[in-house]
Amino acid sequence: MTLGFVGLGKMGFNMVTRLTRGGHAVVATDTNVETVQRIADVGATGVASIEDVIARLDPPRIVWLMVPAGDITEHVLTGVVEILSPGDIVIDGGNSNFHDTKRRAEMLADKQLHFIDAGTSGGLWGLDNGYCLMVGGTDEAVSVVEPIMATLAPPEGYRHVGPSGAGHYTKMIHNGIEYGMMQAYAEGFEIMQASEYDLDLAAIADLWQHGSVVRSWLLELAADAFYDDPNLEAIKGYVSDSGEGRWTVIEAIDRDVPAVSLAYALLHRFRSRQDDSFSAKVLAALRNQFGGHAVKKAES
Amino acid sequence: MTLGFVGLGKMGFNMVTRLTRGGHAVVATDTNVETVQRIADVGATGVASIEDVIARLDPPRIVWLMVPAGDITEHVLTGVVEILSPGDIVIDGGNSNFHDTKRRAEMLADKQLHFIDAGTSGGLWGLDNGYCLMVGGTDEAVSVVEPIMATLAPPEGYRHVGPSGAGHYTKMIHNGIEYGMMQAYAEGFEIMQASEYDLDLAAIADLWQHGSVVRSWLLELAADAFYDDPNLEAIKGYVSDSGEGRWTVIEAIDRDVPAVSLAYALLHRFRSRQDDSFSAKVLAALRNQFGGHAVKKAES
Repeated sequence: MTLGFVGLGKMGFNMVTRLTRGGHAVVATDTNVETVQRIADVGATGVASIEDVIARLDPPRIVWLMVPAGDITEHVLTGVVEILSPGDIVIDGGNSNFHDTKRRAEMLADKQLHFIDAGTSGGLWGLDNGYCLMVGGTDEAVSVVEPIMATLAPPEGYRHVGPSGAGHYTKMIHNGIEYGMMQAYAEGFEIMQASEYDLDLAAIADLWQHGSVVRSWLLELAADAFYDDPNLEAIKGYVSDSGEGRWTVIEAIDRDVPAVSLAYALLHRFRSRQDDSFSAKVLAALRNQFGGHAVKKAES
Repeated sequence: MTLGFVGLGKMGFNMVTRLTRGGHAVVATDTNVETVQRIADVGATGVASIEDVIARLDPPRIVWLMVPAGDITEHVLTGVVEILSPGDIVIDGGNSNFHDTKRRAEMLADKQLHFIDAGTSGGLWGLDNGYCLMVGGTDEAVSVVEPIMATLAPPEGYRHVGPSGAGHYTKMIHNGIEYGMMQAYAEGFEIMQASEYDLDLAAIADLWQHGSVVRSWLLELAADAFYDDPNLEAIKGYVSDSGEGRWTVIEAIDRDVPAVSLAYALLHRFRSRQDDSFSAKVLAALRNQFGGHAVKKAES
């Protein structure tokens, strides 16, 4: 069968590459014309529009969406749904909020379309390592797309975790944990960097990969980063976030779970984006008020 | 050369086993007579006392201490030092505080003895996987014990990270990070367990090992734990700590590093040991005082 693919960004392009390497026929599109042209280099068929993608598929049509979560996913999905026919399947491989996914699955079910959520982890390395896929949806729909999942994932790397939304839910928690793990490593390396010893952080990260309790794939990436730039001088400590960490904390609040470390890992990213902190100004002002402690003047 | 080994607890016994498997001659002792007898089963020579260990070694004598940090290490080390001669080497493989290690290294140097700190990670699995060793000390002493380290560690699994104390320092930070990583996983699994989905936590932990960003050795252990007992019903949520997490936080404070997530992971363990919390009582009392909010009566 031929798979339709919408969205050839950093993740999507590599995923299509892995699919064609695995013997799948893929018809793909993107709003970026240059990317659509380049997709032919990896053996897929690039076309100009979603209409063109769907016109080239046989029923039951399968369309994988790999576009940014939120409004863009909503917009693209709405367009796709208008063209598809009962029995067709849409897979959202992006980082959509699971509440949106549940709503969308119901909307598609009303039109006798199947909706599958496939939380996708692995980043740029997924092309060669395979993507870990957390899949939500009905047994009926998931069984149809299984050959696609098997190609994208490494062995044992995909799983049908539950009904619609469960895949994106599991991916959301995955990312929440990722924030917390990254924060733990980050703080540990900051202490070592401030220590009285002249520690070789790259060598230590590398060493810990060999038999220690904290060995992990993230630590392997940390070693690579420190080998590239031992004091990270070329990198500003400004950290963005893309939603799943926030949703994890909101879900923790909704479920009365005291997930302090995951919440803090998110909040630390907010702090990383501030040049100064109003709360720290308040603290300095109060120390000055009650104790006459000197304040540093803001630079004008 | 024959190595002396003091301390045949869970870690020490396995380490001696790995050393004899690797072809080293080991003379070992412990305060537990039964353990000393059993060490012959793995090819080492069990003797009754530290004096007996040292009497069987040739200069430069090498004695590995694998006993609990703190007073016991201090006591055993003092006893060992009285018997050794200039040029001999003592290795502390336990989780000693690096400040103690620096002091001890100076004390031994005054007697022309060498002191090496070897932070050791790997737990019970180190027997087969090898131990990750973070080694501090002089080049001269470390080069002598290198064959021992090479046998205990997996390939690339030991490293001379700096002068005396640097090995235990690196191990301290390793354990601090371990607390933070464990906390991140723990919170993520708690949210999933509280979710609206009936998620199979063992299967998800296992799935994440295959291509996801959060894959790690700790996650592999989590999968094993959830396969054994899916809701952890047999386990009480009571978590001890053994020092390195505390010292990591104290070092963060000494160095003005805002290591919030590592600190919180430690504090969460304290909370896990409380049946009730006085601070929560204070909050409940204050809500009652200002808002007339009902309080739950303590059960008598």
